Amino acid sequence: MNSRMAGAALLRHLGPRLLAAEPAAYGLTARILPARMASTAAEAAREDAGVKQHGGGTEKQEEPAGGQGKKAIVSYWGIETPKLVKKDGTEWNWPCFRPWDTYTSNTSIDVKKHHEPTTLPDKAAYLMVKSLRVPMDLFFQRRHASHALLLETVAAVPGMVGGMLLHLRSLRRFEHSGGWIRALLEEAENERMHLMTFLEVTQPRWWERALVLAAQGVFFNAYFVGYLLSPKFAHRVVGYLEEEAVYSYTEYLEDLEAGVIDNTPAPAIAIDYWRLPADAKLKDVVTVVRADEAHHRDVNHFASDIHYQGLKLKDTPAPLGYH
Amino acid sequence: MNSRMAGAALLRHLGPRLLAAEPAAYGLTARILPARMASTAAEAAREDAGVKQHGGGTEKQEEPAGGQGKKAIVSYWGIETPKLVKKDGTEWNWPCFRPWDTYTSNTSIDVKKHHEPTTLPDKAAYLMVKSLRVPMDLFFQRRHASHALLLETVAAVPGMVGGMLLHLRSLRRFEHSGGWIRALLEEAENERMHLMTFLEVTQPRWWERALVLAAQGVFFNAYFVGYLLSPKFAHRVVGYLEEEAVYSYTEYLEDLEAGVIDNTPAPAIAIDYWRLPADAKLKDVVTVVRADEAHHRDVNHFASDIHYQGLKLKDTPAPLGYH
Repeated sequence: MNSRMAGAALLRHLGPRLLAAEPAAYGLTARILPARMASTAAEAAREDAGVKQHGGGTEKQEEPAGGQGKKAIVSYWGIETPKLVKKDGTEWNWPCFRPWDTYTSNTSIDVKKHHEPTTLPDKAAYLMVKSLRVPMDLFFQRRHASHALLLETVAAVPGMVGGMLLHLRSLRRFEHSGGWIRALLEEAENERMHLMTFLEVTQPRWWERALVLAAQGVFFNAYFVGYLLSPKFAHRVVGYLEEEAVYSYTEYLEDLEAGVIDNTPAPAIAIDYWRLPADAKLKDVVTVVRADEAHHRDVNHFASDIHYQGLKLKDTPAPLGYH
Repeated sequence: MNSRMAGAALLRHLGPRLLAAEPAAYGLTARILPARMASTAAEAAREDAGVKQHGGGTEKQEEPAGGQGKKAIVSYWGIETPKLVKKDGTEWNWPCFRPWDTYTSNTSIDVKKHHEPTTLPDKAAYLMVKSLRVPMDLFFQRRHASHALLLETVAAVPGMVGGMLLHLRSLRRFEHSGGWIRALLEEAENERMHLMTFLEVTQPRWWERALVLAAQGVFFNAYFVGYLLSPKFAHRVVGYLEEEAVYSYTEYLEDLEAGVIDNTPAPAIAIDYWRLPADAKLKDVVTVVRADEAHHRDVNHFASDIHYQGLKLKDTPAPLGYH
């Protein structure tokens, strides 16, 4: 039984007899009362979240007076948040991802691999991505963390759009997906986790937030239409975007090695997500992130190649769990 | 190490030394040649898929002459499809989902639970869903399998829309999701698996296909806009849709028990997805599907309740792995 199952089983079987939140904090063993109001439920959940969202630290907040009764309840829908623990026995503090979502990165992947554009669409895709590179470099220069931050807000879009469109197609046509829905959604989630990680390294400035709002509005719709018109072209563009991402992270690493940027301790979220040692540094984080981007590069070029062969993604099993 | 990790690890470490497809079929031990062309790759992958997509049976197709050389290659991107096996040692035949996506359903959930609409929006949501019930019943009457088929093409939409919108919001606002993106996407995928299951029980007629095309176009856009305007209302609507789904599957079960419908053997895909015994029947499948719908009902009513408390989903840890 894998731990995803374990988590689910925990919910189902132990759930009703567990305290909803932080039982260890005061060792109550009250049962869930299924008929209690959701107001109390949500209240408890908020307090719970208050603790859990606390940057992944293991420290507890002070209990509000009378908070114990509330905390015994999560929802009259009988939905509990299981109390998860890490391998070392400490509590799992990330509601946004779970132990079974973590993995060990394969950093041995070739970070220099490049798809030589030969066809006209490929050349167009390459040119498009390359031309975006110039203003980005001018804008960010050596503010690599900010660069990474904004890069990931864009990089997390294509996987979601592609996955959604394949999902809807699978439903419309009553046909299998070949695993590509999951593969693309996994990519999107992985990119989003990069964003959550760099958010612990730097905060976006107001004009960067504004830029992201504009960029997402444009890019989401452009990619949506683009994917409908030509998934072959869309995946190739992403392949090249990822090549550029790998290049950017390589520059980031060079500046970290050169000491231009402080090699600060790795954020707690990164240590848990990539299963890094407790004393991991920012350099280790950038290294695994770059490896992820290299994997996405290969998956998207591969997807484009499949279309080039006149095949359908659904007929070519997707590379799952491929980070 | 859970089996999802095991799958990923397999890809990374054994992958390059594994044959891409069906090695057992002819016991080759050739190494992947990373520089081989994608044409060969996709070709091999197609043949591979040809076997794998075969309804999940374990029988092999006849090997085409010279197919062996081709089959040794999947992609010059170094992406291999791992050879997975079931617990009983037989080969895993589902490219559309993997062993670590399967689970044991909790059928002990209350299938009669109902959220009493008290507020005006809730009453509107309930009325809307109820009014859809009448034409559906007239249309399908006792063709439960067809009913299920079309029901699932619609039921798999809200989770995808909600998950995507929360994903984009998380990127735009540089904020955590509280696990709700995953929870909603899991729901969508689970509903899609229901569809893939009933596809083994019955095939849609041409007018049903036409109906689905129209229904998806309307429902996707309506739900998209609706979720932007009021997630509170949107989740409540889904909660009520799921209540109706539970009711429909209960009728399905009654007709199966009454012998009105043959209790045929369970489809292979259902036996693998829900980890059912090899001799499971259609009745067992409908039972676990109904339990899934009941869980989705609770999750969506819960999500709506959270909004009713003036809280945000992201601040209330999502029930993950909750089928």
